[in-house]
Amino acid sequence: MTDLVTAAMIVIGDEILSGRTKDKNIGHLADILTAVGIDLKEVRIVPDEEDEIVAAVNALRARYTYLFTTGGIGPTHDDITADSIAKAFGLPCDYDPKAYAMLEKHYAARGFEFSEARMRMARMPVGATHIDNPVSLAPGFIVENVHVMAGVPSIFQAMLDNVVPTLKTGTKLLSATVHCPLGEGTIGGPLGAIQKAHPDTIIGSYPKSGENGGFYTELVVRARDAGVLETVRAEIAEMVDQLVAKTA
Amino acid sequence: MTDLVTAAMIVIGDEILSGRTKDKNIGHLADILTAVGIDLKEVRIVPDEEDEIVAAVNALRARYTYLFTTGGIGPTHDDITADSIAKAFGLPCDYDPKAYAMLEKHYAARGFEFSEARMRMARMPVGATHIDNPVSLAPGFIVENVHVMAGVPSIFQAMLDNVVPTLKTGTKLLSATVHCPLGEGTIGGPLGAIQKAHPDTIIGSYPKSGENGGFYTELVVRARDAGVLETVRAEIAEMVDQLVAKTA
Repeated sequence: MTDLVTAAMIVIGDEILSGRTKDKNIGHLADILTAVGIDLKEVRIVPDEEDEIVAAVNALRARYTYLFTTGGIGPTHDDITADSIAKAFGLPCDYDPKAYAMLEKHYAARGFEFSEARMRMARMPVGATHIDNPVSLAPGFIVENVHVMAGVPSIFQAMLDNVVPTLKTGTKLLSATVHCPLGEGTIGGPLGAIQKAHPDTIIGSYPKSGENGGFYTELVVRARDAGVLETVRAEIAEMVDQLVAKTA
Repeated sequence: MTDLVTAAMIVIGDEILSGRTKDKNIGHLADILTAVGIDLKEVRIVPDEEDEIVAAVNALRARYTYLFTTGGIGPTHDDITADSIAKAFGLPCDYDPKAYAMLEKHYAARGFEFSEARMRMARMPVGATHIDNPVSLAPGFIVENVHVMAGVPSIFQAMLDNVVPTLKTGTKLLSATVHCPLGEGTIGGPLGAIQKAHPDTIIGSYPKSGENGGFYTELVVRARDAGVLETVRAEIAEMVDQLVAKTA
Protein backbone atom coordinates (compact mmCIF):
# COMPACT_ATOMS: atom_id res chain seq x y z
CA MET A 1 0.00 0.00 0.00
CA THR A 2 1.31 3.41 -0.88
CA ASP A 3 0.85 6.52 1.16
CA LEU A 4 1.15 9.81 -0.69
CA VAL A 5 2.54 12.79 1.18
CA THR A 6 2.82 16.00 -0.86
CA ALA A 7 4.49 19.35 -0.40
CA ALA A 8 4.93 22.78 -1.91
CA MET A 9 7.53 25.49 -1.35
CA ILE A 10 7.44 29.28 -1.47
CA VAL A 11 10.70 31.18 -1.90
CA ILE A 12 10.18 34.73 -0.68
CA GLY A 13 12.47 37.48 -1.90
CA ASP A 14 12.99 40.23 -4.45
CA GLU A 15 16.67 39.34 -4.56
CA ILE A 16 15.93 35.97 -6.19
CA LEU A 17 13.58 37.53 -8.77
CA SER A 18 16.12 40.22 -9.67
CA GLY A 19 18.85 37.61 -10.17
CA ARG A 20 21.04 39.24 -7.54
CA THR A 21 20.97 36.13 -5.39
CA LYS A 22 20.81 32.68 -6.97
CA ASP A 23 18.52 30.35 -5.03
CA LYS A 24 20.20 27.31 -3.49
CA ASN A 25 17.31 26.15 -1.33
CA ILE A 26 14.90 24.71 -3.90
CA GLY A 27 17.28 21.96 -5.00
CA HIS A 28 18.19 21.14 -1.40
CA LEU A 29 14.58 20.85 -0.26
CA ALA A 30 13.75 18.76 -3.34
CA ASP A 31 16.61 16.35 -2.56
CA ILE A 32 15.67 16.00 1.11
CA LEU A 33 11.94 15.51 0.48
CA THR A 34 12.58 12.95 -2.26
CA ALA A 35 14.87 11.06 0.12
CA VAL A 36 12.13 10.73 2.74
CA GLY A 37 9.25 9.94 0.39
CA ILE A 38 7.50 13.33 0.25
CA ASP A 39 6.54 14.50 -3.26
CA LEU A 40 7.39 18.16 -3.90
CA LYS A 41 4.61 19.17 -6.32
CA GLU A 42 5.02 22.91 -6.78
CA VAL A 43 7.41 25.77 -6.04
CA ARG A 44 6.64 29.48 -6.27
CA ILE A 45 9.08 32.36 -6.02
CA VAL A 46 7.29 35.53 -4.93
CA PRO A 47 8.41 39.10 -4.19
CA ASP A 48 8.58 40.82 -0.78
CA GLU A 49 4.94 41.95 -1.10
CA GLU A 50 2.40 40.97 1.54
CA ASP A 51 -0.55 40.37 -0.79
CA GLU A 52 1.54 38.10 -3.01
CA ILE A 53 2.85 36.06 -0.07
CA VAL A 54 -0.61 35.72 1.51
CA ALA A 55 -2.18 34.59 -1.78
CA ALA A 56 0.54 32.01 -2.44
CA VAL A 57 0.44 30.66 1.13
CA ASN A 58 -3.32 30.24 1.10
CA ALA A 59 -3.35 28.63 -2.36
CA LEU A 60 -0.68 26.09 -1.48
CA ARG A 61 -1.29 25.23 2.18
CA ALA A 62 -4.79 24.05 1.26
CA ARG A 63 -3.62 21.81 -1.58
CA TYR A 64 -0.66 19.93 -0.14
CA THR A 65 0.22 18.03 3.02
CA TYR A 66 3.03 20.47 3.84
CA LEU A 67 4.12 23.93 2.79
CA PHE A 68 7.68 25.15 3.34
CA THR A 69 8.76 28.77 2.99
CA THR A 70 12.23 30.30 2.87
CA GLY A 71 13.24 33.92 3.30
CA GLY A 72 12.04 37.13 4.88
CA ILE A 73 12.35 36.29 8.60
CA GLY A 74 15.28 38.56 9.50
CA PRO A 75 15.30 41.88 11.40
CA THR A 76 15.00 44.40 8.55
CA HIS A 77 12.00 46.26 7.10
CA ASP A 78 11.88 44.00 4.03
CA ASP A 79 11.43 40.90 6.22
CA ILE A 80 7.64 40.62 6.11
CA THR A 81 7.13 36.87 6.16
CA ALA A 82 5.91 36.57 9.79
CA ASP A 83 3.25 39.25 9.25
CA SER A 84 2.22 37.72 5.94
CA ILE A 85 1.84 34.22 7.37
CA ALA A 86 -0.19 35.59 10.28
CA LYS A 87 -2.43 37.42 7.82
CA ALA A 88 -2.88 34.28 5.71
CA PHE A 89 -4.14 32.42 8.81
CA GLY A 90 -6.12 35.39 10.20
CA LEU A 91 -3.92 35.34 13.33
CA PRO A 92 -2.37 38.28 15.17
CA CYS A 93 1.40 38.64 14.75
CA ASP A 94 3.20 39.51 17.97
CA TYR A 95 6.40 39.03 19.96
CA ASP A 96 6.61 35.39 20.98
CA PRO A 97 7.52 35.40 24.71
CA LYS A 98 9.90 32.43 24.48
CA ALA A 99 11.69 33.76 21.41
CA TYR A 100 11.82 37.26 22.88
CA ALA A 101 13.38 36.07 26.15
CA MET A 102 15.89 33.87 24.32
CA LEU A 103 17.03 36.65 21.97
CA GLU A 104 17.11 39.24 24.79
CA LYS A 105 19.41 36.99 26.82
CA HIS A 106 21.56 36.19 23.78
CA TYR A 107 22.22 39.86 22.93
CA ALA A 108 22.72 40.84 26.58
CA ALA A 109 25.39 38.14 26.94
CA ARG A 110 27.20 39.54 23.90
CA GLY A 111 26.86 43.15 25.06
CA PHE A 112 24.64 44.09 22.10
CA GLU A 113 21.63 46.33 22.28
CA PHE A 114 18.35 44.41 21.95
CA SER A 115 17.19 46.85 19.29
CA GLU A 116 13.72 47.05 17.80
CA ALA A 117 15.14 45.47 14.65
CA ARG A 118 16.45 42.48 16.65
CA MET A 119 13.14 42.25 18.50
CA ARG A 120 11.45 41.81 15.10
CA MET A 121 12.99 38.34 14.90
CA ALA A 122 10.85 37.28 17.88
CA ARG A 123 7.63 38.21 16.08
CA MET A 124 5.48 35.38 14.79
CA PRO A 125 1.81 34.43 14.44
CA VAL A 126 0.44 33.92 17.94
CA GLY A 127 0.53 30.23 18.90
CA ALA A 128 3.20 29.23 16.37
CA THR A 129 5.67 26.47 17.27
CA HIS A 130 9.41 27.23 17.01
CA ILE A 131 11.86 25.70 14.58
CA ASP A 132 15.25 25.79 16.29
CA ASN A 133 18.05 27.69 14.59
CA PRO A 134 21.43 26.31 15.72
CA VAL A 135 23.32 28.72 13.45
CA SER A 136 22.14 32.19 14.47
CA LEU A 137 19.50 31.52 17.17
CA ALA A 138 16.45 33.44 15.81
CA PRO A 139 13.90 30.64 15.29
CA GLY A 140 11.74 29.74 12.33
CA PHE A 141 8.19 28.68 13.10
CA ILE A 142 5.33 26.34 12.26
CA VAL A 143 1.64 27.21 11.91
CA GLU A 144 -0.49 24.14 11.12
CA ASN A 145 1.13 22.58 8.01
CA VAL A 146 3.23 25.65 7.11
CA HIS A 147 6.94 25.61 8.00
CA VAL A 148 8.61 29.02 7.88
CA MET A 149 12.39 29.01 7.55
CA ALA A 150 15.30 31.33 6.82
CA GLY A 151 16.60 32.12 3.33
CA VAL A 152 20.33 31.99 4.12
CA PRO A 153 21.19 28.46 2.92
CA SER A 154 23.25 27.38 5.97
CA ILE A 155 20.43 28.43 8.32
CA PHE A 156 17.70 26.98 6.10
CA GLN A 157 19.48 23.64 5.96
CA ALA A 158 19.97 23.53 9.73
CA MET A 159 16.30 24.39 10.33
CA LEU A 160 15.17 21.78 7.80
CA ASP A 161 17.27 19.14 9.58
CA ASN A 162 15.19 19.92 12.69
CA VAL A 163 11.90 19.76 10.79
CA VAL A 164 12.32 16.56 8.77
CA PRO A 165 12.10 14.09 11.70
CA THR A 166 8.71 15.62 12.62
CA LEU A 167 7.14 15.07 9.20
CA LYS A 168 4.84 12.29 8.16
CA THR A 169 6.69 10.58 5.33
CA GLY A 170 5.28 8.58 2.45
CA THR A 171 6.21 5.45 0.58
CA LYS A 172 9.43 6.49 -1.05
CA LEU A 173 9.41 6.95 -4.79
CA LEU A 174 12.33 4.77 -5.90
CA SER A 175 14.27 5.61 -9.03
CA ALA A 176 16.66 3.93 -11.44
CA THR A 177 18.61 5.55 -14.26
CA VAL A 178 19.56 4.08 -17.63
CA HIS A 179 22.26 5.95 -19.50
CA CYS A 180 21.47 6.26 -23.18
CA PRO A 181 24.09 7.39 -25.70
CA LEU A 182 21.33 8.15 -28.24
CA GLY A 183 19.26 11.30 -28.57
CA GLU A 184 15.63 11.61 -27.59
CA GLY A 185 14.48 11.52 -31.21
CA THR A 186 15.71 7.94 -31.57
CA ILE A 187 14.30 6.56 -28.34
CA GLY A 188 11.14 8.64 -28.02
CA GLY A 189 8.79 6.18 -29.76
CA PRO A 190 9.78 2.91 -28.00
CA LEU A 191 10.17 4.71 -24.66
CA GLY A 192 6.62 6.08 -24.94
CA ALA A 193 5.39 2.51 -25.58
CA ILE A 194 7.10 1.27 -22.39
CA GLN A 195 5.55 4.13 -20.40
CA LYS A 196 2.10 3.26 -21.81
CA ALA A 197 2.53 -0.39 -20.79
CA HIS A 198 3.51 0.57 -17.21
CA PRO A 199 1.20 3.35 -15.99
CA ASP A 200 2.25 2.65 -12.38
CA THR A 201 5.68 4.11 -13.14
CA ILE A 202 6.87 7.58 -14.14
CA ILE A 203 9.43 7.46 -16.93
CA GLY A 204 11.39 10.64 -17.60
CA SER A 205 13.77 11.40 -20.42
CA TYR A 206 16.40 14.07 -19.82
CA PRO A 207 18.59 15.28 -22.68
CA LYS A 208 22.04 16.38 -21.57
CA SER A 209 24.89 18.08 -23.40
CA GLY A 210 28.13 16.14 -23.12
CA GLU A 211 31.53 17.77 -22.72
CA ASN A 212 32.27 17.39 -26.45
CA GLY A 213 29.13 19.35 -27.36
CA GLY A 214 27.09 16.28 -28.33
CA PHE A 215 23.88 15.20 -26.63
CA TYR A 216 23.02 12.06 -24.71
CA THR A 217 19.97 11.11 -22.71
CA GLU A 218 19.34 9.95 -19.19
CA LEU A 219 16.28 7.78 -18.81
CA VAL A 220 14.84 7.66 -15.32
CA VAL A 221 12.14 5.28 -14.10
CA ARG A 222 10.37 6.05 -10.85
CA ALA A 223 8.07 3.67 -9.00
CA ARG A 224 7.05 2.97 -5.43
CA ASP A 225 7.48 -0.80 -5.81
CA ALA A 226 11.03 -2.16 -6.12
CA GLY A 227 9.98 -5.13 -8.26
CA VAL A 228 8.10 -2.98 -10.76
CA LEU A 229 11.03 -0.57 -10.86
CA GLU A 230 13.50 -3.31 -11.77
CA THR A 231 11.20 -4.82 -14.43
CA VAL A 232 10.80 -1.50 -16.21
CA ARG A 233 14.45 -0.52 -15.80
CA ALA A 234 15.44 -3.79 -17.47
CA GLU A 235 12.97 -3.21 -20.35
CA ILE A 236 14.40 0.25 -20.96
CA ALA A 237 18.01 -0.99 -20.81
CA GLU A 238 17.15 -3.74 -23.33
CA MET A 239 15.50 -1.19 -25.62
CA VAL A 240 18.58 1.04 -25.51
CA ASP A 241 20.92 -1.89 -26.22
CA GLN A 242 18.86 -2.91 -29.26
CA LEU A 243 18.75 0.64 -30.64
CA VAL A 244 22.48 1.12 -30.08
CA ALA A 245 23.19 -2.16 -31.93
CA LYS A 246 20.94 -1.02 -34.81
CA THR A 247 22.59 2.39 -35.16
CA ALA A 248 26.17 1.15 -34.73
CA MET B 1 8.49 58.88 -16.84
CA THR B 2 8.74 55.25 -15.95
CA ASP B 3 7.30 52.43 -17.94
CA LEU B 4 6.71 49.17 -16.08
CA VAL B 5 7.10 45.93 -17.97
CA THR B 6 6.51 42.78 -15.93
CA ALA B 7 7.11 39.09 -16.45
CA ALA B 8 6.59 35.67 -14.93
CA MET B 9 8.26 32.33 -15.58
CA ILE B 10 7.06 28.73 -15.44
CA VAL B 11 9.64 25.97 -15.12
CA ILE B 12 8.05 22.72 -16.29
CA GLY B 13 9.48 19.41 -15.16
CA ASP B 14 9.27 16.61 -12.61
CA GLU B 15 13.08 16.39 -12.65
CA ILE B 16 13.40 19.82 -11.00
CA LEU B 17 10.82 19.01 -8.33
CA SER B 18 12.48 15.68 -7.51
CA GLY B 19 15.87 17.37 -7.14
CA ARG B 20 17.38 15.18 -9.85
CA THR B 21 18.15 18.20 -12.01
CA LYS B 22 19.08 21.53 -10.45
CA ASP B 23 17.49 24.44 -12.31
CA LYS B 24 19.91 26.86 -13.95
CA ASN B 25 17.40 28.83 -15.98
CA ILE B 26 15.62 30.90 -13.32
CA GLY B 27 18.75 32.83 -12.33
CA HIS B 28 19.72 33.36 -15.97
CA LEU B 29 16.29 34.71 -16.97
CA ALA B 30 16.25 36.93 -13.86
CA ASP B 31 19.65 38.40 -14.79
CA ILE B 32 18.71 39.04 -18.42
CA LEU B 33 15.31 40.59 -17.64
CA THR B 34 16.78 42.84 -14.94
CA ALA B 35 19.42 43.98 -17.42
CA VAL B 36 16.80 45.12 -19.94
CA GLY B 37 14.37 46.69 -17.46
CA ILE B 38 11.72 43.98 -17.25
CA ASP B 39 10.61 43.11 -13.70
CA LEU B 40 10.36 39.37 -13.05
CA LYS B 41 7.51 39.20 -10.53
CA GLU B 42 6.83 35.49 -10.05
CA VAL B 43 8.25 32.06 -10.87
CA ARG B 44 6.44 28.75 -10.60
CA ILE B 45 7.91 25.28 -10.92
CA VAL B 46 5.23 22.77 -11.94
CA PRO B 47 5.24 19.03 -12.69
CA ASP B 48 4.75 17.35 -16.09
CA GLU B 49 0.97 17.34 -15.63
CA GLU B 50 -1.28 19.03 -18.18
CA ASP B 51 -3.84 20.45 -15.72
CA GLU B 52 -1.09 22.00 -13.61
CA ILE B 53 0.64 23.58 -16.60
CA VAL B 54 -2.64 24.94 -18.04
CA ALA B 55 -3.67 26.45 -14.69
CA ALA B 56 -0.28 28.12 -14.17
CA VAL B 57 -0.13 29.46 -17.75
CA ASN B 58 -3.61 30.96 -17.55
CA ALA B 59 -3.02 32.48 -14.12
CA LEU B 60 0.24 34.15 -15.10
CA ARG B 61 -0.24 35.17 -18.74
CA ALA B 62 -3.20 37.32 -17.69
CA ARG B 63 -1.30 39.10 -14.91
CA TYR B 64 2.02 40.04 -16.48
CA THR B 65 3.28 41.64 -19.69
CA TYR B 66 5.22 38.49 -20.60
CA LEU B 67 5.29 34.84 -19.59
CA PHE B 68 8.30 32.64 -20.27
CA THR B 69 8.27 28.85 -19.95
CA THR B 70 11.16 26.38 -19.95
CA GLY B 71 11.05 22.62 -20.39
CA GLY B 72 8.90 19.92 -21.92
CA ILE B 73 9.29 20.64 -25.65
CA GLY B 74 11.39 17.62 -26.64
CA PRO B 75 10.37 14.47 -28.52
CA THR B 76 9.46 12.12 -25.67
CA HIS B 77 6.11 11.19 -24.10
CA ASP B 78 6.78 13.36 -21.04
CA ASP B 79 7.15 16.48 -23.20
CA ILE B 80 3.63 17.86 -22.96
CA THR B 81 4.25 21.60 -23.00
CA ALA B 82 3.02 22.26 -26.58
CA ASP B 83 -0.28 20.48 -25.92
CA SER B 84 -0.69 22.22 -22.57
CA ILE B 85 -0.09 25.71 -24.01
CA ALA B 86 -2.54 24.99 -26.85
CA LYS B 87 -5.13 23.88 -24.30
CA ALA B 88 -4.54 27.00 -22.18
CA PHE B 89 -5.35 29.15 -25.23
CA GLY B 90 -8.15 26.92 -26.53
CA LEU B 91 -6.16 26.33 -29.74
CA PRO B 92 -5.62 23.08 -31.63
CA CYS B 93 -2.10 21.63 -31.36
CA ASP B 94 -0.76 20.29 -34.65
CA TYR B 95 2.35 19.82 -36.76
CA ASP B 96 3.57 23.26 -37.80
CA PRO B 97 4.27 23.01 -41.56
CA LYS B 98 7.44 25.15 -41.48
CA ALA B 99 8.89 23.34 -38.45
CA TYR B 100 7.93 19.95 -39.90
CA ALA B 101 9.62 20.67 -43.25
CA MET B 102 12.73 22.04 -41.53
CA LEU B 103 13.12 19.02 -39.21
CA GLU B 104 12.33 16.53 -42.02
CA LYS B 105 15.09 18.02 -44.17
CA HIS B 106 17.51 18.14 -41.22
CA TYR B 107 17.10 14.44 -40.36
CA ALA B 108 17.13 13.38 -44.03
CA ALA B 109 20.46 15.18 -44.50
CA ARG B 110 21.92 13.29 -41.55
CA GLY B 111 20.48 9.94 -42.68
CA PHE B 112 18.21 9.66 -39.60
CA GLU B 113 14.68 8.39 -39.67
CA PHE B 114 12.11 11.20 -39.20
CA SER B 115 10.41 9.20 -36.47
CA GLU B 116 7.09 10.00 -34.85
CA ALA B 117 9.04 11.09 -31.76
CA ARG B 118 11.08 13.57 -33.82
CA MET B 119 7.92 14.78 -35.56
CA ARG B 120 6.56 15.67 -32.10
CA MET B 121 9.05 18.51 -31.97
CA ALA B 122 7.20 20.18 -34.87
CA ARG B 123 3.94 20.23 -32.93
CA MET B 124 2.75 23.55 -31.56
CA PRO B 125 -0.44 25.54 -31.07
CA VAL B 126 -1.77 26.45 -34.53
CA GLY B 127 -0.65 29.95 -35.52
CA ALA B 128 2.31 30.11 -33.10
CA THR B 129 5.43 32.05 -34.12
CA HIS B 130 8.80 30.23 -33.99
CA ILE B 131 11.69 30.96 -31.66
CA ASP B 132 14.82 29.89 -33.51
CA ASN B 133 17.01 27.25 -31.90
CA PRO B 134 20.59 27.59 -33.18
CA VAL B 135 21.79 24.70 -30.98
CA SER B 136 19.61 21.74 -31.93
CA LEU B 137 17.18 23.18 -34.53
CA ALA B 138 13.76 22.22 -33.04
CA PRO B 139 12.15 25.63 -32.42
CA GLY B 140 10.46 27.11 -29.39
CA PHE B 141 7.36 29.16 -30.03
CA ILE B 142 5.35 32.24 -29.08
CA VAL B 143 1.57 32.49 -28.58
CA GLU B 144 0.47 36.03 -27.74
CA ASN B 145 2.61 37.03 -24.71
CA VAL B 146 3.75 33.48 -23.86
CA HIS B 147 7.28 32.44 -24.88
CA VAL B 148 7.88 28.69 -24.82
CA MET B 149 11.49 27.60 -24.64
CA ALA B 150 13.63 24.51 -24.02
CA GLY B 151 14.78 23.36 -20.58
CA VAL B 152 18.35 22.40 -21.52
CA PRO B 153 20.25 25.52 -20.38
CA SER B 154 22.41 25.95 -23.50
CA ILE B 155 19.32 25.79 -25.73
CA PHE B 156 17.23 27.96 -23.41
CA GLN B 157 19.91 30.65 -23.36
CA ALA B 158 20.25 30.63 -27.15
CA MET B 159 16.48 30.89 -27.59
CA LEU B 160 16.26 33.69 -25.05
CA ASP B 161 18.97 35.60 -26.93
CA ASN B 162 16.63 35.50 -29.94
CA VAL B 163 13.60 36.60 -27.91
CA VAL B 164 15.04 39.52 -25.92
CA PRO B 165 15.42 41.96 -28.86
CA THR B 166 11.70 41.50 -29.65
CA LEU B 167 10.50 42.47 -26.16
CA LYS B 168 9.15 45.80 -25.06
CA THR B 169 11.52 46.87 -22.30
CA GLY B 170 10.87 49.18 -19.37
CA THR B 171 12.75 51.88 -17.56
CA LYS B 172 15.59 49.93 -16.05
CA LEU B 173 15.58 49.46 -12.32
CA LEU B 174 19.06 50.67 -11.35
CA SER B 175 20.81 49.29 -8.30
CA ALA B 176 23.68 50.20 -6.00
CA THR B 177 25.18 48.07 -3.24
CA VAL B 178 26.64 49.17 0.07
CA HIS B 179 28.78 46.59 1.84
CA CYS B 180 28.07 46.51 5.57
CA PRO B 181 30.35 44.64 8.00
CA LEU B 182 27.60 44.71 10.64
CA GLY B 183 24.71 42.28 11.06
CA GLU B 184 21.09 43.06 10.21
CA GLY B 185 20.18 43.46 13.88
CA THR B 186 22.41 46.51 14.18
CA ILE B 187 21.34 48.27 10.98
CA GLY B 188 17.69 47.20 10.80
CA GLY B 189 16.23 50.23 12.62
CA PRO B 190 18.04 53.07 10.81
CA LEU B 191 17.76 51.25 7.47
CA GLY B 192 13.99 50.99 7.90
CA ALA B 193 13.87 54.75 8.56
CA ILE B 194 15.74 55.45 5.30
CA GLN B 195 13.35 53.19 3.39
CA LYS B 196 10.37 55.00 4.91
CA ALA B 197 11.81 58.37 3.87
CA HIS B 198 12.31 57.19 0.28
CA PRO B 199 9.24 55.22 -0.85
CA ASP B 200 10.29 55.59 -4.51
CA THR B 201 13.19 53.20 -3.87
CA ILE B 202 13.35 49.54 -2.90
CA ILE B 203 15.95 48.88 -0.22
CA GLY B 204 16.92 45.29 0.41
CA SER B 205 19.10 43.85 3.13
CA TYR B 206 20.82 40.54 2.46
CA PRO B 207 22.67 38.71 5.22
CA LYS B 208 25.60 36.65 3.99
CA SER B 209 27.89 34.17 5.69
CA GLY B 210 31.54 35.10 5.29
CA GLU B 211 34.31 32.56 4.74
CA ASN B 212 35.28 32.69 8.42
CA GLY B 213 31.76 31.70 9.47
CA GLY B 214 30.73 35.24 10.51
CA PHE B 215 27.92 37.22 8.95
CA TYR B 216 27.92 40.47 7.04
CA THR B 217 25.19 42.29 5.18
CA GLU B 218 24.79 43.61 1.67
CA LEU B 219 22.48 46.58 1.41
CA VAL B 220 21.01 47.14 -2.02
CA VAL B 221 19.07 50.20 -3.15
CA ARG B 222 17.03 49.99 -6.32
CA ALA B 223 15.45 52.96 -8.10
CA ARG B 224 14.51 53.95 -11.63
CA ASP B 225 16.06 57.42 -11.29
CA ALA B 226 19.86 57.69 -11.13
CA GLY B 227 19.80 60.83 -8.96
CA VAL B 228 17.47 59.31 -6.39
CA LEU B 229 19.57 56.13 -6.39
CA GLU B 230 22.77 58.04 -5.59
CA THR B 231 21.12 60.14 -2.85
CA VAL B 232 19.84 57.07 -1.04
CA ARG B 233 23.03 55.07 -1.58
CA ALA B 234 24.99 57.91 0.04
CA GLU B 235 22.59 58.05 3.01
CA ILE B 236 22.97 54.33 3.60
CA ALA B 237 26.77 54.47 3.29
CA GLU B 238 26.85 57.32 5.82
CA MET B 239 24.62 55.36 8.20
CA VAL B 240 26.91 52.32 7.96
CA ASP B 241 30.03 54.45 8.58
CA GLN B 242 28.48 56.00 11.68
CA LEU B 243 27.40 52.64 13.09
CA VAL B 244 30.80 51.10 12.39
CA ALA B 245 32.50 54.02 14.19
CA LYS B 246 30.14 53.54 17.14
CA THR B 247 30.73 49.80 17.47
CA ALA B 248 34.53 49.97 16.90
